[in-house]
Amino acid sequence: MAKKVVIIGGVATGMKTAARLRRRDKDAEIIVLERGPELSYGACGFPYYIGGEVKSFNSFDHTPQGAKRDADYFRTVKGIDARTGCNVVAIDRASKKLTYVEAGETKELPYDVLVLGTGATPVRLSLENADAKGIHSFWFPWDVHAVEAEIKERNVTDVVIIGAGFIGMELAEAFVHRGLKTSVVEMQDRLLPQMLDKEMSDLLKKSIAKEPLNLYLEEKTLAFEAADGWVTGVKTDKRTIPAQLVIVAVGVRPNVELAKAAGLEIGPTGCIAVNEYLQTSDPSIYAGGDCAENTHRVSGAKIFTPMGSTANKHGRVIADNICGDGIKYPGVLGTGVCRIFGVSAGATGLNERTAAAAGLKFKSVVAPGFDRLGYMPGAGRIVVKLLAEEGTERVLGLQAVGANVDKRIDTMVAALSFGATLEDLSNLDIAYAPPFNGPIDNIATAANILHNKMTGQMQSINPKDFEAMRADGDYLFVDVRTPKEVAMNRIAGVPNRVNVPLNQVRECTLDCDEDKQIITACQIDLRGYEAEVMLRAKGFKNVKSLEGGMSGWPYATESDRK
Amino acid sequence: MAKKVVIIGGVATGMKTAARLRRRDKDAEIIVLERGPELSYGACGFPYYIGGEVKSFNSFDHTPQGAKRDADYFRTVKGIDARTGCNVVAIDRASKKLTYVEAGETKELPYDVLVLGTGATPVRLSLENADAKGIHSFWFPWDVHAVEAEIKERNVTDVVIIGAGFIGMELAEAFVHRGLKTSVVEMQDRLLPQMLDKEMSDLLKKSIAKEPLNLYLEEKTLAFEAADGWVTGVKTDKRTIPAQLVIVAVGVRPNVELAKAAGLEIGPTGCIAVNEYLQTSDPSIYAGGDCAENTHRVSGAKIFTPMGSTANKHGRVIADNICGDGIKYPGVLGTGVCRIFGVSAGATGLNERTAAAAGLKFKSVVAPGFDRLGYMPGAGRIVVKLLAEEGTERVLGLQAVGANVDKRIDTMVAALSFGATLEDLSNLDIAYAPPFNGPIDNIATAANILHNKMTGQMQSINPKDFEAMRADGDYLFVDVRTPKEVAMNRIAGVPNRVNVPLNQVRECTLDCDEDKQIITACQIDLRGYEAEVMLRAKGFKNVKSLEGGMSGWPYATESDRK
Repeated sequence: MAKKVVIIGGVATGMKTAARLRRRDKDAEIIVLERGPELSYGACGFPYYIGGEVKSFNSFDHTPQGAKRDADYFRTVKGIDARTGCNVVAIDRASKKLTYVEAGETKELPYDVLVLGTGATPVRLSLENADAKGIHSFWFPWDVHAVEAEIKERNVTDVVIIGAGFIGMELAEAFVHRGLKTSVVEMQDRLLPQMLDKEMSDLLKKSIAKEPLNLYLEEKTLAFEAADGWVTGVKTDKRTIPAQLVIVAVGVRPNVELAKAAGLEIGPTGCIAVNEYLQTSDPSIYAGGDCAENTHRVSGAKIFTPMGSTANKHGRVIADNICGDGIKYPGVLGTGVCRIFGVSAGATGLNERTAAAAGLKFKSVVAPGFDRLGYMPGAGRIVVKLLAEEGTERVLGLQAVGANVDKRIDTMVAALSFGATLEDLSNLDIAYAPPFNGPIDNIATAANILHNKMTGQMQSINPKDFEAMRADGDYLFVDVRTPKEVAMNRIAGVPNRVNVPLNQVRECTLDCDEDKQIITACQIDLRGYEAEVMLRAKGFKNVKSLEGGMSGWPYATESDRK
Repeated sequence: MAKKVVIIGGVATGMKTAARLRRRDKDAEIIVLERGPELSYGACGFPYYIGGEVKSFNSFDHTPQGAKRDADYFRTVKGIDARTGCNVVAIDRASKKLTYVEAGETKELPYDVLVLGTGATPVRLSLENADAKGIHSFWFPWDVHAVEAEIKERNVTDVVIIGAGFIGMELAEAFVHRGLKTSVVEMQDRLLPQMLDKEMSDLLKKSIAKEPLNLYLEEKTLAFEAADGWVTGVKTDKRTIPAQLVIVAVGVRPNVELAKAAGLEIGPTGCIAVNEYLQTSDPSIYAGGDCAENTHRVSGAKIFTPMGSTANKHGRVIADNICGDGIKYPGVLGTGVCRIFGVSAGATGLNERTAAAAGLKFKSVVAPGFDRLGYMPGAGRIVVKLLAEEGTERVLGLQAVGANVDKRIDTMVAALSFGATLEDLSNLDIAYAPPFNGPIDNIATAANILHNKMTGQMQSINPKDFEAMRADGDYLFVDVRTPKEVAMNRIAGVPNRVNVPLNQVRECTLDCDEDKQIITACQIDLRGYEAEVMLRAKGFKNVKSLEGGMSGWPYATESDRK
């Protein structure tokens, strides 16, 4: 007899599961129950619609040939019975049937296999006037339509985004493109706080400093101001920002109420717990997408990472496992990437916070470079930060800010998935041609530097750490660039510095004793490293080079201050 | 006592070995003997200088700060004794010394460790008038200067490039940019013949068809024509092409004469044989770069792959091993990438030829898509071809043509380096955002399709194979696109075809018996695959979808013929 598969949720995981299952099993009865009015839409593109890059909302819910992906489409084209406006209210696991409400009517539906693709819901802020009109989440299609309508129909000039994660930053760019006065308020001390370490966020912030965007970090939203039922401003612990439109993008929570009520196991992240086959604690029930827990491939930790790409993969694995393939989903790396104005930022694997939380001992390096050979037209700066485990030199994670970061992140995704070491990265046979990279690619360079650092061949200091000691530190700063380079730009507020171009370092005499702390620096820290080695060879015992040099320096420089 | 390390060859491997060794060992005596007049130049960028993208030759042999990388620079900055114009003529391994000629004077030099970085030399064609002026290799700095001078000073209007490999194709673009009438003559049936299978080359050829470039494939150069000592044309087995400038880019040969004379083992490829530590058959002698043999990481075969990126890695590994680290160089993947006009092409791992030569049984798939979400501005087409081993589904190689191919190749480089399977690729946590890719990245899509194909869920036909049966085949061609799409473009010369849009396939009646061969097709082969499954479910036994659909079709279409 044909298997009866019921899927709750008809957006990413749900429709992917249904479509693949139908292709593999022509006889299965496949029913999708979606609570909302829409099926199978691509929410990740919404910010680009607001920004005007994507002209038609149809891009998100129609096929490229112009067919709306609605119930009729799924029935005729995909052979799937997908029903919108069906709110499942209970799962009876013992008798394998569920109860749902459709158009006010309560109905029952038996299943052989159940798939939960219930998604996630944006977190709301329980603050004064939080119910005022003009305050929106940005998650569902109706959020997008409402925001678009208000921009067009009301006199919106000021917009505030609360939260500097992916959605917040993508929207910030979109609103600036629309000509709105845009502010972002973030409680933490950095942009993309789940992805980036502080100095990488500082670099990102510096690289978009010229954009007409107000960034308020380490600032807590306390209340909304409103008049006539509409929002008029956002009150933080430091200021009040006028706003006729507010986006609350402080994260989402997995929709697990149904699963919880049915007695399914909920994991430590608050998501539905699943095994490697994406089965819940009831083997007849699978869960995938935003509502399901993921395992981090590097740390082994359970994590909540709501991503459309992951939801699609889950759907495929679930369909294959319903067909009996026994596919093990290997987990995720917490990968993410985001274009923000002219630059991009992203990460994969662990950063300092998540590596420390996993109890790992690690070292890191900040390594700037170009996205292709530096002399090629269009070459852009890229700074990567690489983390590796002490002892094993197993790579833990990569962060990147600048041009063409997605390529380096994806390469690292593959490497991290197989437990690569620094030596593995160093010897990858990366595709080389001047329009695409240098003969030693950025991630190989970073791996080489970090290996030098972990083996003691190089002793360097992270820009964040140097900034902390800069003003009052007892050190000699040796800038080994050419006088011309120094004249163009140098770190601001360094009390005690000399300029010794690299070609003079071997023969130079430094006016300090050999125990004095010396910081060497250049443009990207290649010459700084060489100077460090030379000075050590001359007998100085306490020499460090400044990681990333001027290109990786996220803080003030003298040309900035002019 | 300080170790005496002598390095023969001062370009890539040699200078890299020397520089790293100096950083690690301040006491070692490091002497580099370079036969030519130049040290440490970056030859890979030469075509972009000819094309006018790189304005100054200094980009190739000066530091970014403007210092020429000459003997003085290496002495003062790097602490290395590098000598140009020193031609080593013999290695006496028993007494560990070598004989070299400098300015006509024969000298001897003892060594503790010897490094061979003797590079490669362009293959010359032994044809009539091959010594005429105006015929050049394109390998050394003096080749570049000569070509540039002749374009500027002589009345060059027509240039012929012999060889459609990387250098030939990069130069073809460069000459077209310079406004020269440019022809490429290639003996084999394809562009980038070492990298691409036939249909991928055909796609590349099709995508650059509008450029003012004459491509003559499967054409053998027989002789050069000359007058007054200067070349005037290239005679092939099919035509004579006028030319005032000819580039012979038919490959290079490793410089192994010195090693051979010293009794060092030469491998099956004609390169110097090395072990995984890059030691030759004499453990005191290392070899790296173009003169040294590489091992293919997928097939295990010995290969000759002269690449600047590999030479740099060799240099680092050799220096580390001289310091006693015992680093094993893991080999290469034969990776390469090339920008040709607006598109790019490249590959990593094995292609059909090299996989067959390695005795592997494999299947492949051609999968087109966009380089980002299709609705994003600037989205470009990319077609990938993926090969995997039968039985194990181990991935063997990737080829790619189109936009942003380098990212997919590099990701695959990392995956191939660790023996990834199709399932591994399918579940990589690739960085996803609409400006960078779709929720299922191109390589995951290709992996999913190929898995479907290898497990029999999908039955498809490669475009090359369909082209071979197209004109006289006994088949029904079912185009499942919309009538509008069909009207815009369809495969030329298909005798027996119907248009059944996908949403009608489930209910359609085909006027053929169930054993008839049916070919389904759409734009990229997603709908073609779905139609294939539906028709099989309807009882048709011999249904195949056309891999890559219209986007992956390298041959004539009706709109082309209009």
